[in-house]
Amino acid sequence: MASPARRSQSLATHDRQICGTGGPVPTQTGYQAVRDATEALAAPLSPEDQTVQTMPDVSPTKWHRGHTTWFWEQFVLLAHASGYRAYDERYLYLFNSYYEGAGPRHPRHDRGMLTRPGAGEVTAYRQIVDEAMASLLSEGMSDPLRDLVELGQHHEQQHQELLLMDIKHVLGTNPLRPAYLPEVRAIAPSVASPLAWVPHDGGLMEIGTHGGGRFAYDAESPRHRVWLEPFDLGDRLVTEGEWLEFMADGGYRRADLWLSDGWAAVRAEDRHAPLYWESDGDTWDVYTLGGWRRVDPAAPVVHVSYYEADAFARWCGARLPTEAEWEAAAATVDGPVALPIALHPTAAEGEGLRQMYDSVWQWTSSAFCPYPGFSPAPGLVGEYNGKFMVAQQVLRGAASITPPGHSRAAYRNFFPAAAQWAFSGVRLARSA
Amino acid sequence: MASPARRSQSLATHDRQICGTGGPVPTQTGYQAVRDATEALAAPLSPEDQTVQTMPDVSPTKWHRGHTTWFWEQFVLLAHASGYRAYDERYLYLFNSYYEGAGPRHPRHDRGMLTRPGAGEVTAYRQIVDEAMASLLSEGMSDPLRDLVELGQHHEQQHQELLLMDIKHVLGTNPLRPAYLPEVRAIAPSVASPLAWVPHDGGLMEIGTHGGGRFAYDAESPRHRVWLEPFDLGDRLVTEGEWLEFMADGGYRRADLWLSDGWAAVRAEDRHAPLYWESDGDTWDVYTLGGWRRVDPAAPVVHVSYYEADAFARWCGARLPTEAEWEAAAATVDGPVALPIALHPTAAEGEGLRQMYDSVWQWTSSAFCPYPGFSPAPGLVGEYNGKFMVAQQVLRGAASITPPGHSRAAYRNFFPAAAQWAFSGVRLARSA
Amino acid sequence: MASPARRSQSLATHDRQICGTGGPVPTQTGYQAVRDATEALAAPLSPEDQTVQTMPDVSPTKWHRGHTTWFWEQFVLLAHASGYRAYDERYLYLFNSYYEGAGPRHPRHDRGMLTRPGAGEVTAYRQIVDEAMASLLSEGMSDPLRDLVELGQHHEQQHQELLLMDIKHVLGTNPLRPAYLPEVRAIAPSVASPLAWVPHDGGLMEIGTHGGGRFAYDAESPRHRVWLEPFDLGDRLVTEGEWLEFMADGGYRRADLWLSDGWAAVRAEDRHAPLYWESDGDTWDVYTLGGWRRVDPAAPVVHVSYYEADAFARWCGARLPTEAEWEAAAATVDGPVALPIALHPTAAEGEGLRQMYDSVWQWTSSAFCPYPGFSPAPGLVGEYNGKFMVAQQVLRGAASITPPGHSRAAYRNFFPAAAQWAFSGVRLARSA
Amino acid sequence: MASPARRSQSLATHDRQICGTGGPVPTQTGYQAVRDATEALAAPLSPEDQTVQTMPDVSPTKWHRGHTTWFWEQFVLLAHASGYRAYDERYLYLFNSYYEGAGPRHPRHDRGMLTRPGAGEVTAYRQIVDEAMASLLSEGMSDPLRDLVELGQHHEQQHQELLLMDIKHVLGTNPLRPAYLPEVRAIAPSVASPLAWVPHDGGLMEIGTHGGGRFAYDAESPRHRVWLEPFDLGDRLVTEGEWLEFMADGGYRRADLWLSDGWAAVRAEDRHAPLYWESDGDTWDVYTLGGWRRVDPAAPVVHVSYYEADAFARWCGARLPTEAEWEAAAATVDGPVALPIALHPTAAEGEGLRQMYDSVWQWTSSAFCPYPGFSPAPGLVGEYNGKFMVAQQVLRGAASITPPGHSRAAYRNFFPAAAQWAFSGVRLARSA
Repeated sequence: MASPARRSQSLATHDRQICGTGGPVPTQTGYQAVRDATEALAAPLSPEDQTVQTMPDVSPTKWHRGHTTWFWEQFVLLAHASGYRAYDERYLYLFNSYYEGAGPRHPRHDRGMLTRPGAGEVTAYRQIVDEAMASLLSEGMSDPLRDLVELGQHHEQQHQELLLMDIKHVLGTNPLRPAYLPEVRAIAPSVASPLAWVPHDGGLMEIGTHGGGRFAYDAESPRHRVWLEPFDLGDRLVTEGEWLEFMADGGYRRADLWLSDGWAAVRAEDRHAPLYWESDGDTWDVYTLGGWRRVDPAAPVVHVSYYEADAFARWCGARLPTEAEWEAAAATVDGPVALPIALHPTAAEGEGLRQMYDSVWQWTSSAFCPYPGFSPAPGLVGEYNGKFMVAQQVLRGAASITPPGHSRAAYRNFFPAAAQWAFSGVRLARSA
Repeated sequence: MASPARRSQSLATHDRQICGTGGPVPTQTGYQAVRDATEALAAPLSPEDQTVQTMPDVSPTKWHRGHTTWFWEQFVLLAHASGYRAYDERYLYLFNSYYEGAGPRHPRHDRGMLTRPGAGEVTAYRQIVDEAMASLLSEGMSDPLRDLVELGQHHEQQHQELLLMDIKHVLGTNPLRPAYLPEVRAIAPSVASPLAWVPHDGGLMEIGTHGGGRFAYDAESPRHRVWLEPFDLGDRLVTEGEWLEFMADGGYRRADLWLSDGWAAVRAEDRHAPLYWESDGDTWDVYTLGGWRRVDPAAPVVHVSYYEADAFARWCGARLPTEAEWEAAAATVDGPVALPIALHPTAAEGEGLRQMYDSVWQWTSSAFCPYPGFSPAPGLVGEYNGKFMVAQQVLRGAASITPPGHSRAAYRNFFPAAAQWAFSGVRLARSA
Repeated sequence: MASPARRSQSLATHDRQICGTGGPVPTQTGYQAVRDATEALAAPLSPEDQTVQTMPDVSPTKWHRGHTTWFWEQFVLLAHASGYRAYDERYLYLFNSYYEGAGPRHPRHDRGMLTRPGAGEVTAYRQIVDEAMASLLSEGMSDPLRDLVELGQHHEQQHQELLLMDIKHVLGTNPLRPAYLPEVRAIAPSVASPLAWVPHDGGLMEIGTHGGGRFAYDAESPRHRVWLEPFDLGDRLVTEGEWLEFMADGGYRRADLWLSDGWAAVRAEDRHAPLYWESDGDTWDVYTLGGWRRVDPAAPVVHVSYYEADAFARWCGARLPTEAEWEAAAATVDGPVALPIALHPTAAEGEGLRQMYDSVWQWTSSAFCPYPGFSPAPGLVGEYNGKFMVAQQVLRGAASITPPGHSRAAYRNFFPAAAQWAFSGVRLARSA
Repeated sequence: MASPARRSQSLATHDRQICGTGGPVPTQTGYQAVRDATEALAAPLSPEDQTVQTMPDVSPTKWHRGHTTWFWEQFVLLAHASGYRAYDERYLYLFNSYYEGAGPRHPRHDRGMLTRPGAGEVTAYRQIVDEAMASLLSEGMSDPLRDLVELGQHHEQQHQELLLMDIKHVLGTNPLRPAYLPEVRAIAPSVASPLAWVPHDGGLMEIGTHGGGRFAYDAESPRHRVWLEPFDLGDRLVTEGEWLEFMADGGYRRADLWLSDGWAAVRAEDRHAPLYWESDGDTWDVYTLGGWRRVDPAAPVVHVSYYEADAFARWCGARLPTEAEWEAAAATVDGPVALPIALHPTAAEGEGLRQMYDSVWQWTSSAFCPYPGFSPAPGLVGEYNGKFMVAQQVLRGAASITPPGHSRAAYRNFFPAAAQWAFSGVRLARSA
């Protein structure tokens, strides 16, 4: 793993004592730690910042804060806290994201139309729910409740990452060019090591969650066998410097490099660089949560779509890994360290497979499909993953903005192939 | 004119001593009075309320506050205050509305995407510009500057009305059903007098601004002759009670009553009532800036499109007036009194033509065209009216939310035929 | 009037003996002459040509042929021919254009989706209806029937012009660049006379149809008084040569020349010339129904939108006439001669007001509004004009493709301001 | 395999002597047989039928006829026939489908805008190209040429199926309800056997083309190992009768059964049944290429999207097979018999896995991805499959309208999850 010392100044948003690599602990203290972490991320944002939705995929910060609260209220308090009554019945409608089983809900693309409840009203909502949760959790937990609390913690952690992804879009597309945290120093430009290939023999491998008490989403089950032919993985992520070479070589103008849908998107949007890259003609600037900086040749490229990742791989004679290849290779190195959230990815240093979890998510060539024998979690939370298993590509690893304890080798993140606003980058693969 | 005592509690947003029926006085005191009135209207609104744009036609409150400030900066300070430098060059881009001659500008439909500058930053911008304006105006004014200041005051008054129209849409479409000013009591349901027809002999009439020192927009010039056949005007506006009858008689289901485009809109939007009307099946509620209230049979109907107004008139065997008819008839009664802004329209009382200026704007059957001999004002402000002279219908009169001194018989308001979010209602006419 | 000898070779589609300036005669012979004229226009077109709809405004040729037949069947035969039964009930649905009173209908934008009935089946439909009409008309006509037959003839004439407008779009946007009638020789490039201004004193004028037995649509009634200030009209139409000057002077790049909606359209469509103009960089070619030809400096410009016409007028310091000005001036010259349809407009020669009816329709600055005292024709045909009286601009005169007898001084053609595919051009006006 | 005698009357469009299960033979005779088969399919269609494009995915018949000809001209004649010159340079633009390497092309969604070239002109084009091909093929073939001819034959066969799919949409959405071949009798309603499960042991299997001289597309290579857990396949396809049960049980109204995107599509389109099903309230009718018929309980359901297939499987407690499962199971039964094209699918009879190739394509849960070690075919034809490897689901088997010799166990058909207009149905699977 990259040394934490090399990372940019981090956000002290999680208590590492209660949040090891195994993820948040389903206790009252663990609950509140996750809740506090969300508020810490929202703290630098004004009421106006928390209100706007710059594209349908983006949700306002105050919506994330309200929705994660709704999750506790809807799935834990209303189901398990006797006598609990909804804080405001209308919030059950406003803050339901996509749970058909939980009733009707405000349309996703209209989340930015709501000025009320304001950021302050959401704070009040959070406090009431936290008090009710504290009371419930102080009574001791049954196993099903414990599982639900653990799921809720992971759910809220996921939204912490989404909150950062989304606010980056809100601020990164503002002509005033504001930073989320201007005081967070960017990594100084540095030199990346030459790409090396790390071989894997393939064979009959097992992938999927081990279970054994560690939390995992339903989509990571069941563990099962896959056959892999021998392959190599790049030891580090593709860099901004390498992306500049791709651009200079006409990468965005050569139809032969692109998937058909990707080429159509590039033409329709007149795209010439990753999202959040801007050029004055001579040089390129890149927007980060710490503000705009000059392009950094050694930094891993981020905010590329699957189409771009795939075209880049084709351009350099390689390909993207399958998710099974990625996981099988990840099993040969140490798992993720529970690093605090950091605005900037880690530059590659050392040897072996690096930047697996501490920099940016890595597109795979695998579509998000059910594992053999998969069945969704029972109850309402069964809508969590299974119903998205079409027309999505799997990303593996984790990003610097992923909360500590939320990363694992079996984790299956997914986005549509056109998505650019996730912290998504590229690890190359090739057949041996 | 209706007695002010019948009006709902009004917003004390204008100093009537400096703002007579002739409109705001172009002095330093008059300038500041208009500016303060804008801030008074924004005062009840949170930063979140001021940020959102619920449809492309709506602008956020803080944008209105910034744009009116930009108008002073762009057209007065930068042109007439020696040594003045722009507060922030980027605001010249963000707050230009549609003046091609003033350079590029932020897209209208993206005004709600901006979290920065926040409401507080706009306040700071306003203060700096107000200070510079105070300094400039204290030096005495040339005639062209005086004309420009007067135009700027009317421009800002116009945006005061737009601000209220727009925030009504923002709050009126929120599922939490908030009021803008909940403490402003609605008019108690009352009985409207039967509609009476006020005859006019027609003949060769003159319409357009008299000039003579009174302010008017360029589109009101030149005064010119028109020939009118004899006609009658309704003595009061169409009421919510009459609109209920129209609805009950299948008004929204009978294609024969509608203009072709209007029928297409009604079908496409599945519309069954004016904007801001909601029914639980039995009764209808109507959203006002003071909150939701039960439908009021005597209140003038508001928020109907030109299509709806025209269909209603056809349904009851009448028609809408032309703008020349309206203005010729208005010349026979007293002009507008400089009433303070009021959230609720005036109910009709008394005799003769009533509710001409104190209730809601009145659709006419006239398209917004140049008067014979029209030429736009010279310079950048020439973009104010002339370039909109196609595919718009003229509305005449004024609304209860129109600022005092901003109403006059020659005033030509205009909106597209489909617009519903203006305070637009119906006065009937018929050929004699 | 321009000498017929100067016109391009014409389409002998109307028998001038039965079709004088008064329009088609409502007799059995007159009926069949109009019907035959439609078929003559369709004769050069293949089944494929007759099937396609290249934009929602365009209707396929075979639809025009079917719809005009439906008009006779729906409004005449089913209402007046005892015992007549519909040829095919489904055709009543397929060929109704927009008559809400006549029941549901096939969506306008899907007319090009229908391969059946084919062109030949439409021919059979026409023949059956013609036979029934012959039988009915041979029995003698009541006055109401006579009026209906006359209306039906004018209706079919109007569709003859639409058929040519529409097939021009179908063929003119085909990459193979086919002509409708390649053998129809285009006018040789020539020199237009310098524009001269023809003055008019204005005053209290009368416009609208005279009645007196001559056919007119309901929208041309009632004849009424209007007051006009003195004005001048251009003696001829604006030419392609003058349009080239406008283009060379940045006409399509100067926002100050354009109505706001027009400028938005020009930017959105990246428009630099009239519809059907193409350039290889050096010269401009223009598509006509006779095929592509080099731009002709003396030919009247055609296929410009209202936006373009208005911008051009502003560019040269003039304006467009109002429809009342146009009609008042037209009353001072001879009315239209019943010329056969011609593919090419007439070049201006002679003195006085020229090219009033024999070249292209002329945009006016007047929106299409009801005349004072207007009431729609009774019955289903009342949907003919009145329901379109919003967001349309009036065009006056006629075009070379207008059928003989279908032109008159009081005629009010109308299209939306953005329309380019009509044979629309520019006559300038100015206030005296 | 189902007995040919049970099939509906078939289209005698292929000479089975020259077109065995191995596919068309790359000889001059074989070439012409494939070409003639295309023309036989177009023969029942009028010029109008051949011209229209009822949705962007549909291509006009004459376009299919032209495009398949272009393939021969572009890839064979221009590359291999010395001295050959393009029939019409503009056809290279009009009839290129999506080959970026072959230059610019007419937009896919505008194929229905073209009236020229007409159906007859396409016939002439086909004849000239066929003559040139005959001349070239009579000279003997190099191996690369032979491969290209074989590919071209399979390409044209694929378009024969597309032609039928597309004309079904053109005719099936016409309010006149025409049949493609009304004389082709539909299968009489019959009784399907109860669904039986055919078990498979799983293990380390091989899938992909065997090679060994048999034609295959590049996407079927390389043959490779996959690990399969034990599973069962349904012995026959899901029937229309079973689909009625799904509908009756609220299948289209229960969100819990659907993938999230599928549910959104069902809501947006208000879908309650497969494509081409219509109800008068009591009974359901189904459109076939032989015309409308009453729903047939024993017939395999067709024209369901992946979303629908997946929801149905979930409803009955099963799932869809992966493509590897399908292919592994197919290896245990006889391969496809080279049956002539038939308008109607085969009803299930007999034992074991049935209806694998002779009825409808079968959705799999596998996304269309590159096989391990996949590389696209060299040259322009490399655009054939590889660039579509995202956001598509694989279908396996073949349909009754698939040309003889065009079916094989390794064949990977693919469509987006929302597509309904392909001949797509459902075979169930379950984990053992």
